[in-house]
Amino acid sequence: MSPAAQQLARMLNELGRITDEPGKLTRTFLSPAMRRANARVAAWMRAAGLKVRVDSAGNVIGRSEAGTAGAKTLLLGSHLDTVRDAGKYDGALGVLLPIVALAELKRRRIMLPYAVEVLGFSEEEGVRFASAYLGSKAYTGQLHASDLKLRDADDVTVKQALEQFNDTRFQLPKPAHRESNLMGYFEVHIEQGPVLEAKRLAVGVVSAIAGQTRGRLTFRGQAGHAGTTPMNLRRDALTGAAEFVLCTETLARSCPPLVATIGTVSVAPGAPNVIPGEATVSLDVRHPRDDHRAAALELLLDSARKIARQRQLTVTWQPTQDNVAVTCSPELTQWLEQSVGAVQRRSVSLVSGAGHDAVVLSALTPVAMLFVRCRNGLSHHPEEFASPADLDVALRVVTDFLARLARPPP
Amino acid sequence: MSPAAQQLARMLNELGRITDEPGKLTRTFLSPAMRRANARVAAWMRAAGLKVRVDSAGNVIGRSEAGTAGAKTLLLGSHLDTVRDAGKYDGALGVLLPIVALAELKRRRIMLPYAVEVLGFSEEEGVRFASAYLGSKAYTGQLHASDLKLRDADDVTVKQALEQFNDTRFQLPKPAHRESNLMGYFEVHIEQGPVLEAKRLAVGVVSAIAGQTRGRLTFRGQAGHAGTTPMNLRRDALTGAAEFVLCTETLARSCPPLVATIGTVSVAPGAPNVIPGEATVSLDVRHPRDDHRAAALELLLDSARKIARQRQLTVTWQPTQDNVAVTCSPELTQWLEQSVGAVQRRSVSLVSGAGHDAVVLSALTPVAMLFVRCRNGLSHHPEEFASPADLDVALRVVTDFLARLARPPP
Repeated sequence: MSPAAQQLARMLNELGRITDEPGKLTRTFLSPAMRRANARVAAWMRAAGLKVRVDSAGNVIGRSEAGTAGAKTLLLGSHLDTVRDAGKYDGALGVLLPIVALAELKRRRIMLPYAVEVLGFSEEEGVRFASAYLGSKAYTGQLHASDLKLRDADDVTVKQALEQFNDTRFQLPKPAHRESNLMGYFEVHIEQGPVLEAKRLAVGVVSAIAGQTRGRLTFRGQAGHAGTTPMNLRRDALTGAAEFVLCTETLARSCPPLVATIGTVSVAPGAPNVIPGEATVSLDVRHPRDDHRAAALELLLDSARKIARQRQLTVTWQPTQDNVAVTCSPELTQWLEQSVGAVQRRSVSLVSGAGHDAVVLSALTPVAMLFVRCRNGLSHHPEEFASPADLDVALRVVTDFLARLARPPP
Repeated sequence: MSPAAQQLARMLNELGRITDEPGKLTRTFLSPAMRRANARVAAWMRAAGLKVRVDSAGNVIGRSEAGTAGAKTLLLGSHLDTVRDAGKYDGALGVLLPIVALAELKRRRIMLPYAVEVLGFSEEEGVRFASAYLGSKAYTGQLHASDLKLRDADDVTVKQALEQFNDTRFQLPKPAHRESNLMGYFEVHIEQGPVLEAKRLAVGVVSAIAGQTRGRLTFRGQAGHAGTTPMNLRRDALTGAAEFVLCTETLARSCPPLVATIGTVSVAPGAPNVIPGEATVSLDVRHPRDDHRAAALELLLDSARKIARQRQLTVTWQPTQDNVAVTCSPELTQWLEQSVGAVQRRSVSLVSGAGHDAVVLSALTPVAMLFVRCRNGLSHHPEEFASPADLDVALRVVTDFLARLARPPP
């Protein structure tokens, strides 16, 4: 394994110990641990030759200028906040790996003809304010006055937290760059899924970030005594919901890369000897194509209505979230595929089912993403793990990619 | 409608206002409201010519002796406790209706050649100590030392509650009667189900009280990210449980009078964006024949294991309750059917899916039960309702039944 990959693994371990909760890794937006993490990352950035600032939203930004005036800037990054009791790769990898890659290029005395900014976003997971992407929204000028009013568990608003962090009045930031000055945004992230492991590959190229619809379906029938109501006189809300659960699974299985998940069920009255009068299920539908997602959702809701009708139930749908899909930049992705092909021989294209900072950045500039295999697809868990060997592959891909982007187009 | 039925409806209304919780009907084992209810019921018993005592378990007992020495005793009754926020028919009807019927026979100067005991059991619902039938268990000598150690929400034991109620040391009671001295036990109860309503009949004869198996099934798979785990790599515990829910419904529908109910579901981790790694469902299976219930349970557990195997899940079964079925006395039931036929023209035979005091009494003496139609099959609910016209039919049936039992066998 390369000394650079060993260095990256050490940095991930060190950053993974900077936490707000002793004994586990929890680092949330603007917390004391986040301040310490920013300081540590800033030091690594400086050592790699970057000029560092922390913006008013707590994002740590390391910049190296291009050799030539008027050159565009390539953005590289991810987030430094974590979920509660997190693993040490989610987010951190996408901040630290570019730093190590740039240090390696510097060691090899390779000058890039474009400027680079490495971004450690202060907020992506939505833990503290139950709202995700606050860091990248601020960086890209997409933070709104309404975001500032959100409150954490201690009733502190985003605005108050920011003003305390900055020790000065907070104003909604403008975008850090004009679109025309940017080459794009590139994010390295652990896959958080099992596909690369199943394909026995260290890294894969993300073609798109799936759009997502979430909501709740409530089936209503008639509660009744489990002993005294014959089967033919029942209007059981749960059996209707169960039929819908299976119908959702069947549809999604038959239409990859569609994924559809029912992650919660609640039943009322909810006693072993009472027929369920009401059953509510969550529904999460994702697809890289928005039209396919919309069609799948419509099919599922139609099925729910048909199931309800056949069972003399009613059903209501309450949407709670709707995010459009992001297609990765064909140009950047093509270069990235070449780098992956050069390092790993096989390149594979993946859809990201999870959201990432790249979703927010895509409003400002074309985006590309590299996924790194993680053990058992496990993420948001202390046992989250990407092997040093895979980190080595990812590092070589990114170094190759940065150098490849430096070449004049053919 | 007969004056007797009007009187019965008034008594039900009056008893339904004797509660521990203002604004709703809640009357639990040995509570202040139960003491007041016992006093009121005792007064009605005395007015009907019965001699009244309250036993050491708080059961109120009204007895009329037979004209002839050495005659056997017919027991009639039900319970006076209620669930929380109850209706006023469940239990109370089976205590008050016999009182009114005996008063009516007295008014008509019909002397019964057998002794009668009307029983108002102090505990059937299991609300206070989460253990049912304490009243009828005490009356039949089936209360055990272990029952006395049960604790209520205020950490008071059954023994302490009984000693406070009696103001004296409590000893486990012997059976109130020798089996050889009894003709049987007869209980009138609202149906608590929709069958009589569907058949447009006021009353029906219970042929058996279903046996019951309850327990929990837990399916375990692999939790995972709802966005990043393709459908074909999932081991979703909830979809397995959903398949089981439908399989349970299908089996029970195809084998009446089998009923099988899944009344609770819990999912872990239980977030909309996480594939369920674990899903636990309750299972309640009832059938009037124990061998059929055992066979149905075995089929269901087999299905659960097959579903788990096919989905690479595991499944565990944890039984929590197992009650054998009670077959009603063929002799008493035959007399009762004649009375129902005489009053209502059509007699119909029903299986009780719910347990009743008759289950406990069946250990001591043959039992028979009459069900009275209740609106929408609703029970354990303030809107529980049996119409005065139906009460009239039930009253005429019971009066006829008591007189019929007095005739010498053909």
